[in-house]
Amino acid sequence: MKFEVAANIAYEAKSSSTLILNVQPYKFDGQLVIKEDFHVDPDLKMQELLSDTGEKRFQVVEVAEAGNISIHYKATVENEIKAIPAEHLVDVPIQKMPVAALSYLNPSRYCQSDRLYKFASNKFGNKESAFHKVIAICDWINDNVEYSGGHTNAQTSAYDTITEQVGVCRDFAHLGVALCRALTIPARYLTCYAYQLQPPDFHACFEAYLGGYWIIFDATKLAPINGLIKIATGPDAADTAFAGTFGNLDFRSLDVSSRFLGDEFQGVDYSTSTQGYAYV
Amino acid sequence: MKFEVAANIAYEAKSSSTLILNVQPYKFDGQLVIKEDFHVDPDLKMQELLSDTGEKRFQVVEVAEAGNISIHYKATVENEIKAIPAEHLVDVPIQKMPVAALSYLNPSRYCQSDRLYKFASNKFGNKESAFHKVIAICDWINDNVEYSGGHTNAQTSAYDTITEQVGVCRDFAHLGVALCRALTIPARYLTCYAYQLQPPDFHACFEAYLGGYWIIFDATKLAPINGLIKIATGPDAADTAFAGTFGNLDFRSLDVSSRFLGDEFQGVDYSTSTQGYAYV
Amino acid sequence: MKFEVAANIAYEAKSSSTLILNVQPYKFDGQLVIKEDFHVDPDLKMQELLSDTGEKRFQVVEVAEAGNISIHYKATVENEIKAIPAEHLVDVPIQKMPVAALSYLNPSRYCQSDRLYKFASNKFGNKESAFHKVIAICDWINDNVEYSGGHTNAQTSAYDTITEQVGVCRDFAHLGVALCRALTIPARYLTCYAYQLQPPDFHACFEAYLGGYWIIFDATKLAPINGLIKIATGPDAADTAFAGTFGNLDFRSLDVSSRFLGDEFQGVDYSTSTQGYAYV
Amino acid sequence: MKFEVAANIAYEAKSSSTLILNVQPYKFDGQLVIKEDFHVDPDLKMQELLSDTGEKRFQVVEVAEAGNISIHYKATVENEIKAIPAEHLVDVPIQKMPVAALSYLNPSRYCQSDRLYKFASNKFGNKESAFHKVIAICDWINDNVEYSGGHTNAQTSAYDTITEQVGVCRDFAHLGVALCRALTIPARYLTCYAYQLQPPDFHACFEAYLGGYWIIFDATKLAPINGLIKIATGPDAADTAFAGTFGNLDFRSLDVSSRFLGDEFQGVDYSTSTQGYAYV
Repeated sequence: MKFEVAANIAYEAKSSSTLILNVQPYKFDGQLVIKEDFHVDPDLKMQELLSDTGEKRFQVVEVAEAGNISIHYKATVENEIKAIPAEHLVDVPIQKMPVAALSYLNPSRYCQSDRLYKFASNKFGNKESAFHKVIAICDWINDNVEYSGGHTNAQTSAYDTITEQVGVCRDFAHLGVALCRALTIPARYLTCYAYQLQPPDFHACFEAYLGGYWIIFDATKLAPINGLIKIATGPDAADTAFAGTFGNLDFRSLDVSSRFLGDEFQGVDYSTSTQGYAYV
Repeated sequence: MKFEVAANIAYEAKSSSTLILNVQPYKFDGQLVIKEDFHVDPDLKMQELLSDTGEKRFQVVEVAEAGNISIHYKATVENEIKAIPAEHLVDVPIQKMPVAALSYLNPSRYCQSDRLYKFASNKFGNKESAFHKVIAICDWINDNVEYSGGHTNAQTSAYDTITEQVGVCRDFAHLGVALCRALTIPARYLTCYAYQLQPPDFHACFEAYLGGYWIIFDATKLAPINGLIKIATGPDAADTAFAGTFGNLDFRSLDVSSRFLGDEFQGVDYSTSTQGYAYV
Repeated sequence: MKFEVAANIAYEAKSSSTLILNVQPYKFDGQLVIKEDFHVDPDLKMQELLSDTGEKRFQVVEVAEAGNISIHYKATVENEIKAIPAEHLVDVPIQKMPVAALSYLNPSRYCQSDRLYKFASNKFGNKESAFHKVIAICDWINDNVEYSGGHTNAQTSAYDTITEQVGVCRDFAHLGVALCRALTIPARYLTCYAYQLQPPDFHACFEAYLGGYWIIFDATKLAPINGLIKIATGPDAADTAFAGTFGNLDFRSLDVSSRFLGDEFQGVDYSTSTQGYAYV
Repeated sequence: MKFEVAANIAYEAKSSSTLILNVQPYKFDGQLVIKEDFHVDPDLKMQELLSDTGEKRFQVVEVAEAGNISIHYKATVENEIKAIPAEHLVDVPIQKMPVAALSYLNPSRYCQSDRLYKFASNKFGNKESAFHKVIAICDWINDNVEYSGGHTNAQTSAYDTITEQVGVCRDFAHLGVALCRALTIPARYLTCYAYQLQPPDFHACFEAYLGGYWIIFDATKLAPINGLIKIATGPDAADTAFAGTFGNLDFRSLDVSSRFLGDEFQGVDYSTSTQGYAYV
């Protein structure tokens, strides 16, 4: 389905600085960037890069001198997200996992799966399949963690959220990723534009490797799965922040939007015990 | 210089399991694997994989049934490590960094650079260059952290070591990496065979991106830099452990060795204020 | 009931040091120390102190010079532990709590109740009374935390155990205390001799303030409640360790025992939904 | 010297609640409360309590129903703080310490001295005396920790501040206390009214037990030592918060003041290598 996504971001530079922006949907089979426009006011030197794992692309913006900077990004993007029946989402034995999935079994900065083994196996270990474990993980997070801003910060990790049980989409996704990895299910953090997300903002979900597919999960259950336009995937928020600032830059404002370009949007359920969703 | 490196590892499998071994030096311009032999007793199905960033290769060993397993690896490897004069190790501005280096500015599981900004800038910020900052970081770690086993474990991170000030090579390297990243110097964890390391074992060091080179640093100062045979580099130990076990495997023993194949070994100093060392 | 408790402890002093031992049952209405013998070999200067809150007494032993030290303690102690019917264990409103109970609402070194509010209220908040909340806490700990040595250390706290879900009596008690305080139920850590504990050792439980009584709870359920001879109570293990060493002392051995001096010992159930147990 | 101290605090109760206020200077030899007035509007049931260690007193306020509450406290207090020459501040051997001092060697919620042994001894261990160690601790904190609000919260502890190196008076005091205890110097957290503190607020300092005196230290160096009116001492902020709320109370505002009642105020230096200050 086709969406017009946009992000307008403002900074004030106190001196020459560098800004690395990761707001452009990346290009892969499951998602087509039909057209996009990225410009910065004032006009600054920019360079687009593609991460070596190909899971994100970013713009390196050179801020030559102090002053206000506004970034304007707009794109028309078509995603293709399909439902995969549960019976196809079979457990993948380690020795059959591709290298790219194996690396997503490791703990990361905000997803300390190495400290969650017992919790994860006590709570979810008895489910019949990896897919049903992830469904149960999302339900548990949704039931036990309060979605509320202002309680967590850039250092909050899955190890905190599992106990403090309050946070935002970033925290929900980190906990989901960490619990999957603790159960030897490869999982990666996903940043995206989310149609119908209220209030509008960048969104975070995660993907688990099941039956050879990266199945999308949103433990917050705040936006339809098929309205997600993927920006980046990675180990966790440490690698996928929408902006990295180097130098003396003050964040001023962020405005994110997503508009459906079709006639009528049919939001799909979240992954359920009968089917999961994946970019195909 | 040429070395014969070997690793003999034993496990007892209680049931069918999978073992992922990361003990083979990887192949790149700075290091030539002349010959190698990897075999497992009993003879088990194995598959060699190369990580997608190409920074390590590993063997996935399928353990079909319970029993004792012994892994025997031996290789002849030639490394080429050169001294780079300090004047070539100039600071690299963000916008000039390759993608592969940028990703090594992010915090990781055991290297929480995002919590060390003030410490790092208070202690090392005033040094004249990035290179001199890393030299000062290694000296500070070596002066303040006691090298002693049994005090740290698999969950110990740079954030612990900076205060608890005791650990092994893994902890020294994690702290070095984290402090570099906190100063916007890309740094990656390095595992290796280390000639003349006493007692013999796998070793951990780190590399910092300076002047376009990945300069090798060993904050433990326990083995000559030019005797290091690189096995893997990655964000930290979470991605570069010599073995990952899945299933029911008990570790039994590890025996690591490195033998110089030339006439006479001339160990080089560690990186100093006048020069650094890199694989070239 | 009457018990003969004993502790034999050995240290090796490398130099003149000080040893503070907290192994003597303290004297209060619920417990009578009929006779006791405390001696140290070699004969060293000792001084008995009573903590200012009166919740423990200890011996300060001055070790004049290097050498082996063996401490021998033996006592005949009679405890009086009674069952209190649940209907008497009514919730105590804050404004009715004595000062001594109020202080046990605060978080402490190993019991970070301030980080467990949501977890505690999500999991136990809906129980009908404070007493039933504590019963549920003990059951949850017993069901979810594996009793196993070697996984935790002197720095392990309730915040770790709630997620890592493995530990020993100390960890079980810390978590029980922390969860109670998070629910505004005063709770204190209790060290004791425990009859029929296998293997014999010092034991840790906790007490919660309910209906005006300090009700005893043992989340490990490893020893009969009425066989406990109380040594000390305090905020947590930081204040109640059996020994504190100052100087250069190496721990050598510990042997603890408890012998019933009556005809036949009738172990009582743990606190249940119908009754709790307290020293009276 | 004589001061008029005042605190005006406002809450909004959403339902019947209980408020425990700890804002009244406590009474001891070093401080005389000449007169005081504590009233709450509306008029609510109150009860004054003295902690069992006598180190603080507090008011338990019963909030019967929802509504706005304003607390008004004003007192005339005379403190007596004397300079003690360094030569009298001799190290006190463990076996000579009173019970009340021994308990202040233990780690507490926000002062994890058990994790700072190596740091403390590496950095301060070589100083000639306990007194000079504490002086060096205060200087190090003042030099390395940035005084700045908004970076730390109610969960921030000494273990964080030692590395993150930013915080407010609470964090400075916690770190000072933790480092002293790590060096076997009894130390306790102190809350107070501070004359000439800008902006006016409650203040936190600490006391270390030296030469038989509790010597006052303020690592922030923001207010004259002899202008401090002590409210409470305890293990750390967990036991000495100015208010504890139970029920549904929202904090609205706080206004603290201290006025000198003499002719001319002579602020004294902070404790220096030549002398320390103590209430006498």
